[in-house]
Amino acid sequence: MSKVIKGGTIVTAERSFRGDVLIEGERIAEIGTDLAGDEVIDASEAYVIPGGIDPHTHLEMPFMGTTAAETFESGTFAAAAGGTTMLVDFCLPGEDGSLLNAIDEWDRKSKDQICTDISYHMAITGWSESIFEEMEAVVKDRGINTFKHFMAYKGALMVEDDEMFASFRRCAELGALPLVHAENGDVVAALQEKYMAEGITGPEGHAFSRPPEVEGEAANRAIMIADAAGTPLYIVHVSCEQAHEAIRRARQKGMRVYGEPLIQHLTLDETEYFDKDWQYAARRVMSPPFRSKDHQDGLWAGLAAGSLQVVATDHAAFSDEQKRMGVDDFTRIPNGTGGLEERMGMLWTRGVETGRLTPEEFVAVTSSNIARILNIAGRKGHVAVGAEADLVVWDPSITKTVEVATQKSIIDYNVFEGMEMKAQPRFTLSRGEVIWSWGQNSQPKPGRGKFVRRPAYASASKALSKWKALNTPRKIERDPMNIPAGV
Amino acid sequence: MSKVIKGGTIVTAERSFRGDVLIEGERIAEIGTDLAGDEVIDASEAYVIPGGIDPHTHLEMPFMGTTAAETFESGTFAAAAGGTTMLVDFCLPGEDGSLLNAIDEWDRKSKDQICTDISYHMAITGWSESIFEEMEAVVKDRGINTFKHFMAYKGALMVEDDEMFASFRRCAELGALPLVHAENGDVVAALQEKYMAEGITGPEGHAFSRPPEVEGEAANRAIMIADAAGTPLYIVHVSCEQAHEAIRRARQKGMRVYGEPLIQHLTLDETEYFDKDWQYAARRVMSPPFRSKDHQDGLWAGLAAGSLQVVATDHAAFSDEQKRMGVDDFTRIPNGTGGLEERMGMLWTRGVETGRLTPEEFVAVTSSNIARILNIAGRKGHVAVGAEADLVVWDPSITKTVEVATQKSIIDYNVFEGMEMKAQPRFTLSRGEVIWSWGQNSQPKPGRGKFVRRPAYASASKALSKWKALNTPRKIERDPMNIPAGV
Amino acid sequence: MSKVIKGGTIVTAERSFRGDVLIEGERIAEIGTDLAGDEVIDASEAYVIPGGIDPHTHLEMPFMGTTAAETFESGTFAAAAGGTTMLVDFCLPGEDGSLLNAIDEWDRKSKDQICTDISYHMAITGWSESIFEEMEAVVKDRGINTFKHFMAYKGALMVEDDEMFASFRRCAELGALPLVHAENGDVVAALQEKYMAEGITGPEGHAFSRPPEVEGEAANRAIMIADAAGTPLYIVHVSCEQAHEAIRRARQKGMRVYGEPLIQHLTLDETEYFDKDWQYAARRVMSPPFRSKDHQDGLWAGLAAGSLQVVATDHAAFSDEQKRMGVDDFTRIPNGTGGLEERMGMLWTRGVETGRLTPEEFVAVTSSNIARILNIAGRKGHVAVGAEADLVVWDPSITKTVEVATQKSIIDYNVFEGMEMKAQPRFTLSRGEVIWSWGQNSQPKPGRGKFVRRPAYASASKALSKWKALNTPRKIERDPMNIPAGV
Amino acid sequence: MSKVIKGGTIVTAERSFRGDVLIEGERIAEIGTDLAGDEVIDASEAYVIPGGIDPHTHLEMPFMGTTAAETFESGTFAAAAGGTTMLVDFCLPGEDGSLLNAIDEWDRKSKDQICTDISYHMAITGWSESIFEEMEAVVKDRGINTFKHFMAYKGALMVEDDEMFASFRRCAELGALPLVHAENGDVVAALQEKYMAEGITGPEGHAFSRPPEVEGEAANRAIMIADAAGTPLYIVHVSCEQAHEAIRRARQKGMRVYGEPLIQHLTLDETEYFDKDWQYAARRVMSPPFRSKDHQDGLWAGLAAGSLQVVATDHAAFSDEQKRMGVDDFTRIPNGTGGLEERMGMLWTRGVETGRLTPEEFVAVTSSNIARILNIAGRKGHVAVGAEADLVVWDPSITKTVEVATQKSIIDYNVFEGMEMKAQPRFTLSRGEVIWSWGQNSQPKPGRGKFVRRPAYASASKALSKWKALNTPRKIERDPMNIPAGV
Ligand SMILES: [Zn+2]
Ligand SMILES: [Zn+2]
Ligand SMILES: [Zn+2]
Ligand SMILES: [Zn+2]
Ligand SMILES: [Zn+2]
Ligand SMILES: [Zn+2]
Ligand SMILES: [Zn+2]
Ligand SMILES: [Zn+2]
Repeated sequence: MSKVIKGGTIVTAERSFRGDVLIEGERIAEIGTDLAGDEVIDASEAYVIPGGIDPHTHLEMPFMGTTAAETFESGTFAAAAGGTTMLVDFCLPGEDGSLLNAIDEWDRKSKDQICTDISYHMAITGWSESIFEEMEAVVKDRGINTFKHFMAYKGALMVEDDEMFASFRRCAELGALPLVHAENGDVVAALQEKYMAEGITGPEGHAFSRPPEVEGEAANRAIMIADAAGTPLYIVHVSCEQAHEAIRRARQKGMRVYGEPLIQHLTLDETEYFDKDWQYAARRVMSPPFRSKDHQDGLWAGLAAGSLQVVATDHAAFSDEQKRMGVDDFTRIPNGTGGLEERMGMLWTRGVETGRLTPEEFVAVTSSNIARILNIAGRKGHVAVGAEADLVVWDPSITKTVEVATQKSIIDYNVFEGMEMKAQPRFTLSRGEVIWSWGQNSQPKPGRGKFVRRPAYASASKALSKWKALNTPRKIERDPMNIPAGV
Repeated sequence: MSKVIKGGTIVTAERSFRGDVLIEGERIAEIGTDLAGDEVIDASEAYVIPGGIDPHTHLEMPFMGTTAAETFESGTFAAAAGGTTMLVDFCLPGEDGSLLNAIDEWDRKSKDQICTDISYHMAITGWSESIFEEMEAVVKDRGINTFKHFMAYKGALMVEDDEMFASFRRCAELGALPLVHAENGDVVAALQEKYMAEGITGPEGHAFSRPPEVEGEAANRAIMIADAAGTPLYIVHVSCEQAHEAIRRARQKGMRVYGEPLIQHLTLDETEYFDKDWQYAARRVMSPPFRSKDHQDGLWAGLAAGSLQVVATDHAAFSDEQKRMGVDDFTRIPNGTGGLEERMGMLWTRGVETGRLTPEEFVAVTSSNIARILNIAGRKGHVAVGAEADLVVWDPSITKTVEVATQKSIIDYNVFEGMEMKAQPRFTLSRGEVIWSWGQNSQPKPGRGKFVRRPAYASASKALSKWKALNTPRKIERDPMNIPAGV
Repeated sequence: MSKVIKGGTIVTAERSFRGDVLIEGERIAEIGTDLAGDEVIDASEAYVIPGGIDPHTHLEMPFMGTTAAETFESGTFAAAAGGTTMLVDFCLPGEDGSLLNAIDEWDRKSKDQICTDISYHMAITGWSESIFEEMEAVVKDRGINTFKHFMAYKGALMVEDDEMFASFRRCAELGALPLVHAENGDVVAALQEKYMAEGITGPEGHAFSRPPEVEGEAANRAIMIADAAGTPLYIVHVSCEQAHEAIRRARQKGMRVYGEPLIQHLTLDETEYFDKDWQYAARRVMSPPFRSKDHQDGLWAGLAAGSLQVVATDHAAFSDEQKRMGVDDFTRIPNGTGGLEERMGMLWTRGVETGRLTPEEFVAVTSSNIARILNIAGRKGHVAVGAEADLVVWDPSITKTVEVATQKSIIDYNVFEGMEMKAQPRFTLSRGEVIWSWGQNSQPKPGRGKFVRRPAYASASKALSKWKALNTPRKIERDPMNIPAGV
Repeated sequence: MSKVIKGGTIVTAERSFRGDVLIEGERIAEIGTDLAGDEVIDASEAYVIPGGIDPHTHLEMPFMGTTAAETFESGTFAAAAGGTTMLVDFCLPGEDGSLLNAIDEWDRKSKDQICTDISYHMAITGWSESIFEEMEAVVKDRGINTFKHFMAYKGALMVEDDEMFASFRRCAELGALPLVHAENGDVVAALQEKYMAEGITGPEGHAFSRPPEVEGEAANRAIMIADAAGTPLYIVHVSCEQAHEAIRRARQKGMRVYGEPLIQHLTLDETEYFDKDWQYAARRVMSPPFRSKDHQDGLWAGLAAGSLQVVATDHAAFSDEQKRMGVDDFTRIPNGTGGLEERMGMLWTRGVETGRLTPEEFVAVTSSNIARILNIAGRKGHVAVGAEADLVVWDPSITKTVEVATQKSIIDYNVFEGMEMKAQPRFTLSRGEVIWSWGQNSQPKPGRGKFVRRPAYASASKALSKWKALNTPRKIERDPMNIPAGV
C-alpha cells in the first residue's frame, strides 16, 4: 500500500520546493508533482521535512547513583510527537567493563520499547587491551561507528589524555568517529570542593564549578589529541564561546572537528540557576550548565556559518525526587534535563521565525548533517528517492505552549515550560508509518523501532587518513659515517 | 529518447552511492539501480557528478583598452571539455551606462556562440537614479539576481563607499545579491605610482602594488557596508588570509558572507611574477595577484570548513600580444588569466587526491554551493530527479597533462602548463546532451547553450531581511515635556 | 627655592616605592629618602605620580556651526584640579586651509589663558601641494609631530583614502605620527539620512547611525593605509571591540599601532541615549557614541594587556543651549562631552580600585605611555631626575562625588554627575609650581602654561622605517633578451 | 671609590638619552651630564643599558641520567661576557622531594662559583602536604617568589592538572607566580613511542614528537587553570604561534599571562634537526624543539606588541658525549642547548638592527620586564638612581662571530656558531664592578655573585587578587520554604 504526502513544500538541506512525496513500504519511491498513492497525507500549507535525528540522549541511563527516568518508550514517543524520528543513545559499559556486553544490555532495555529507530554511541570509560580488541567488534559486528569519551566526571566516567589518545588512534584505524564530553574533570572537581567548602551548596554552585573556560580548555585539548591521532572529532554539547572558538580555530587549520550545541544552551541561560526556588534551579542542572546570554549569539551564528553542525538535546531526564538527592550538595544532583519533544519546535521558533536560520539550515542542523556525520546519509536525514521515509509534515500554523500536563515525556517538569512554539508536526512518519498525528490522540507503538547499523569509514574519515598519510613525518636518512658511536 | 548513465558512483554534496541516472529529454528522470534507457552512457569505474558551474568569467570582455580573447564559443567549449557545464559571465555597462543595454549587448555577443548554459552578473560601475531604476528590471525582467561592484580599478570601474551602500541597499530591497571585487583602489593606484617611480616596471610591480592587506581591507569594508545595508554579500576571488579572515570574522557574527577562491590562487604562487622571462610573468598578471604560498593552506581549509564556498576561475584570457601592451609599464598589462578548462581537474588533483577535500566537498564547491547561492538549486548543481541533466562522468583513471597544444582555450599559453591532472571528464552532458567525450574528437556546438534566468529572494536573503527587520533600531518615544525648544 | 614632596609612595609605570622628590626650579633634582628642601609638600599616605597628560581635547573649537564652550583657561584649570598637567589640543585649519596660520590662531587663543602646559596635534582636512609643504614647517619649526585625520564628518573634516595615504607617507618622511578619527563617514552619512527619514530624530539616532562596525571598519582601513605608507599609527577614541580587534590583529603582525580609549567609553554605555529626557541624552552625544556594556571589558583588558596604551577624554564641551541646535535633528547636535577633570579619578576608581589595573598601569595609561608616543618622555610623564616636575600627590583618602556645582569646567552639566571618585589630587604641580591644592580654594593662573615642542622621529618611527627599508620590494632584473618588444 | 660611565646614550625601557652614570659602591648614585667620578668608564659611541637578566637557565642540572655541563662559574662568566648580569636558575627537588633541601643543594653548588648575581625558581614536581607547607617557607624565608611546573617529562618531572591547580592556588595565597613548561606530556610520550616504533630514531624524531599543537594545548590548559586558581601565570619558552595565540587570547580577556620566547626559537628553525650529521642535529635537541620559520615572525611581533615580555635562553648545555647517550634513541638525547653568552648580541642583531625592535624594547625584553615580573624592579633591570649598578656599555661597533674557540661557555659546540653579532658589551658591570671588558682578557671571579631574594606580592598579583575577590561567585540565598527535603 502506497502513501503520498501531497501539497507541501519540501525542504531539504539544499533547497525548498513544492512537491509531493510518494512512499512505498518503508522508503521514498518518488518525488514530484501530482503524485498519487493509496493513501493521501495532507501537507498543504505545510513543509515536508526529514524527520529529526537527535544524536544525544540518555534514556534509562544509570548515572550518579540513580537511573534516568525517561524510558526508551516514553522517550521515543515524545521524540516522535516533536518531529524527531531517530535518536542515538549513549551506551555505557557496566561493571565488567565490556563494550559488547553493554550493547547487549542496551538492546535488552530498548528493543521492546522503542517507537522509532535508534542507534548507539559506545562510551570508552577506561582503557585496556580488551577494550582495544572489542572496539573492532563494536564497529564491524555491531554497526556502531562512534565512541564517546568523557573528559569530566572524575572518578567515574572520566578518561585521561593518554587513554584518549590511544582510543582516538584506534578510532582512526577502524574508521570510527570519537566524541567527547569536553570539560576539565580535574578542575571541575577542585572547584566543586572549593564552592562546597565556601558553603555554596545550591544549584548555582553547579554552574560556578563548571565555568566556560573549563569547557573551552577541554575542547581545545581533545582537538589537539584528535589531530595528533589522525581522526576527525565530534564535540558534544558545545555550550559556550570558548569551546566554539577552539572548534573554529581548528577548522580554519583544516582539522575536521564537529560541534553540537544543544537546544537548551541556545535558548536558556544561567540565571535559571539563581532562581530562589531550589527545585526550579535543580531541574536545570546539567553539564555543561546553561551559560550567560552572551554565549548564545555565537552558537546561533555557528549554526548558520557551519562551524557548528548539529543541534541535539542531551536528553537525560531525572524526576524531581531524583534531583532532591542533591538538596544539600549540588554535586549530587543528577545531571540532566530534557528536550527531545521540544528540540524541533523551539529551534524553529527561535531560529527560523527570527531569520537566524533558513528553513534549509533548520533541516541541516536537525537531521541532514548528523546523518552525514553518522555515515547514514543515504538512509536517513534526507527527502530523497530511496531514503527511508522518516518524514515530518511540519505545520507552521500550529502554535503550542510547552506544558507538563500535555507533554509525552514522563518527567514531572519541563525546562521549556510556558514557552511558545510556533510550528509543530502535523504528522510524523517513521519508515512510512504515521506514528504521530496532531490532535488525533496518537499512541506509542513500542517495539516497532529498529536499531540502525552504521558503517565505518565516513568520507571525512577517509579524506583525513589520506592527508595524514601523505603528510606523515619522514625519517632523515643519515650516512652511518655521520652517526657517532653511542656512550 | 532516454539515456541512462550506468554503473557509476554518484557523488552529490551530501554523499556518494552506486547508482544509475536515467535522463529523459533535458532532465533527470530517475536515479536508481539497474535502470534502462534507449542509450547507455558508461560510467563504470567512474563518478557521476553535477556539471561544474564557474560563476566568474570574462569572455570577450572589453577591458584596459583591449578585449579578452577568449570567446563565448571557445570558452564554453573549453569549459565543457574540463567538466564545466555552466558559467556566469560579468556584464559591464557600456559608455551609455545603461544596464539593460549592456545585457542586450552581452546577449548579442553570446547567444549564437555558447555551447553550454550561461548566466550573467550585472556590474554596477557608478550610481544614478537611472541605475537605481534599471536594477529592478534587471532582476525582474531579465532574471539576473546578482550585482558586481569593483572596489579597485580607480578611474574606471571603481565605485565609492556611498555608491556601494546605495547599491547594496537596493539589492536588499530587490532580493538580489551584491558581489565585490575587493581591493582598495586608492591604495593600489598610489602603490602603482610609487613602484613605477622607483623603476619597478615589470610584472613583479603588479604583485607589489596589490599586497594582501589591500585586499583584506576592502573585503572587510564591503562586509561592513553589506551588514549596514542588510544584505548578504559574495566576495569574488578571495586570494589571501587577510580577506578570508575578514569573512570568517563576519560569519562568526552571523553575517551572511560568501567567499570564492580561484583555482589559480589555490595552486600557484607569487614567485611566478619573479620569473626572469617577462612574458612568462606577464601571462600570470591578474588581480588579485598570486600570493605567497602560506596563503594557500588557509584557502584549502576554508573550503573544507565552509568559510569559503565556491571555487571559480575569473577566466579572462589575454593573448601574449595583448599582455605586451604593458611591456614598459606593468599597470598596462591586461589583467587576467585562464582556468575554465582546468578548474575541475586541478581541484580534484590538489584537493581530493591529497585528502584535503572529500569527493562530496569537491562537488559542493564546484557546483552545488554556487547553484544554491545563485538560487537555481532545483535546476542546476545537483544529481536529483527533476534537475537539468548537466552531468559529468568523472573518470579518475584519465591522467592529463596541461598543454597549450591540446587545450580548447584559444589562448597561446596556459598558467597551468605542464601540470598533471589526475581525473578528467569521460563524458560531459549539458541538459542531457553529450557535448564532450574523452578521446572522441568532440566539437563545439555553438548556439545550443541557453541563458539561465535566476529568481530573486534566495533563502538566505529572506532570512536576513527577517532578522534585520526584527532587530532594526527603534525610536525612543519622549514626552514633549522632556524635549526642550530648539535654538 | 627648592621643594620636596615628602613621605609618599612614588608610582611610575615600572614600579612603586617609598621616596621623596626634590624639585629645583621646574625640574626634579633628586629622588631618594629623607630629602630636604625649602618647602615641604606632604605626600604621606598618598601616592606621588606624574601629572596626567590628556592627549585629546578640543578647547574653544569651532565645530558644527558653533564653538566648544570650554576655554583654554577653564579647561586647563579643570584638568589641574583633576590631576592632569598637560593636554594636547587639536588645531584645525581655518578657511584658508593653511596649517601655519591655524597654529598662529591656536596660539592666539591659548597663550594668555593656559594654566598648564599644552601642545597641539595638527589636523589634515584636505590635501594639496601647500599642505604637503607646510607639514615640514609644522614639524620642524613649530614642534608638532602629530597629524590628525578625520575619516568621518563627511563634507566637513573628512579626508579620502588617497589623501590619507599621501599624508601618511608624508608623516613617514618627516618622522611624524598620523592620528585618525576612525569612522566610515560615507556610511555614517547614509545611516543618518536613513534614520532621519524613518523619523528617528532624537539622540538615539546618533548612536544608531554610528554602530561599532562603522568604527571597526575605519580603524582597519587606516591601519592598512599606515602599513602601506610605512608609518606607525595612533587611533583616537577607540570605543569598541571591533576597532580594538583590528588594532590587536595589526599589532600581532608587527605593525605599530596605538589605541586610545576614552574614560567615557570605559565607564558609560549607550543606554544613556535612550533616556526619556532629550537634554540628558543630547548632552552625551559624541562620536563615536557610547557603546553597549559588553565592549567595556575588552577596553579595560586592552589597557592591562598593552594593546591599548592611552586613556584620553576627547573633551569637547558644548552647553545645553548649544546641544539644543539639534533638537529636531540629531545630526545637528554638536558632538562632544567632557571629562578632563574626571579622567584620572574615574579611571582610578573603576580601574585600580577594582584590580583591573595596577597603580603602575594607571600611571602608564594616563601619562607615561603618551609621553613616549609623543616623543617627550624625557620631559613629561615620568617621575625621574631631570624630568619636568609635573607631579600629582594622589590621595586615595579623598572621595569626591562629581557635581556640576563644584566642578571647574564651565559647562552646565557633567556626564559623570553623581558618580563617586575614590581618589583625587591633594596637590597638583606644574613644572614645580603647585597649581591645585585640595580644599585650598586654588585659583587659575592663566598664561603660566607653556607650549611644549615635540621633536620628530620617535624611536618606534625610526625602527619601523628601518624595517620597511630592509623589506621593501625589489625589482626583478631581467635580461633584455627576456623582455619582448611592446605593442 | 666612585665610577662614572661617561659619554654614552643611556637606554631604558622608556627612552634613550645622552647622559653619564655615577656609581657609588654597588649602586647608581646619579644620572646626569658632565658627571665626575674617581674612575671613568668610557661609553662614547656606545649605549649604556641595564645588564641583561636571563630568567631561565639550568646550570649543573641533573637531568635525563646526566648533569648539564655548564657550571655556575662558566655559565655566569659566559653570561657576563655577553652582557647578562643576572640569571635565574631552576632549582629541582631531589629524591627526598623537599623544596628546602633542594635550595640548600643549589646554594651549595652555586655559591662559590657564581660570578654574577643569581636567583632561583623552585620546581614543583609533585604534590603533598609537605610541599604545600614548604612553599610558604620558600617564599617567606628563602626569597623565592616563583614556582615552576612541568607539564611534560612524563614519569619524571611532570605534574597532573589537579596538582597544578592545587599549586597555583597556593601560589595565589602566597603572592607567588607560577611558571609552566607547556607541553602535553601524555601526547609527547605517545608520539615518542609511535615514531620510535616506526624506526624514526634520530633527532628529527624529537621534533616530530613535540609538534606545536602539543605546546599550544598545554599553554592553553595552564592558562585556564591559572585563571581558575586566581593567579597570574608565566609561560616559559614560548616557541610557536599556537602557544602565543593562547597567551594573546587570555590577555585580551584581562588574564595576566606572561610569555617568554627564547633567543633560539627567534632565530633558529626545525631544519636544523634534519641535518645529515647526527651530532649536529643532536646538539640542537631541546624542548620545545625549534619550529618552522613561519613561527618566528609572530614571536618577534609579540615582543614589540607586548604580548610576549621576556627573551630567555633555557641554557642547559650538554656536551657532545652526553648527547650521544641518545644515538639510537632520540628520547634519550639530553634536552638542552646554550645561549647565555649570545642572547643579547643575537637579539640586538636580529631585532634592533633590522628595526623589528626599538632599542628601548630591547632593554625591556632582556632586562626591565623580567625585573618587574620577578618583583625586583627597584633593584635590577633599570638605569635609575638607587638601583644596583648592573650595567653594560653596549657597543654597536664591535662585531663578533660566534665561535666555539673563543666562547666562554665550556661546551664543545654552539648552536649559533658562525653567526655574526653586530654589537657586544664593551664593559659589563655587576653591582658597580667591571667584570668583563672587551679585549682585555677578563677572567671569572667565582664567588663574587650573590643570591637575590625576591619579595612576594608583585603588583600584578595584588591587582588580580583584588579583582577575583570582587568577582567571586556568590551564594544564592534561598528561603528554607523554597528548599525541599532531601531523599
Ligand atoms: Zn555530557
Ligand atoms: Zn550527554
Ligand atoms: Zn576582479
Ligand atoms: Zn573578475
Ligand atoms: Zn573624533
Ligand atoms: Zn576629538
Ligand atoms: Zn622546559
Ligand atoms: Zn628550562
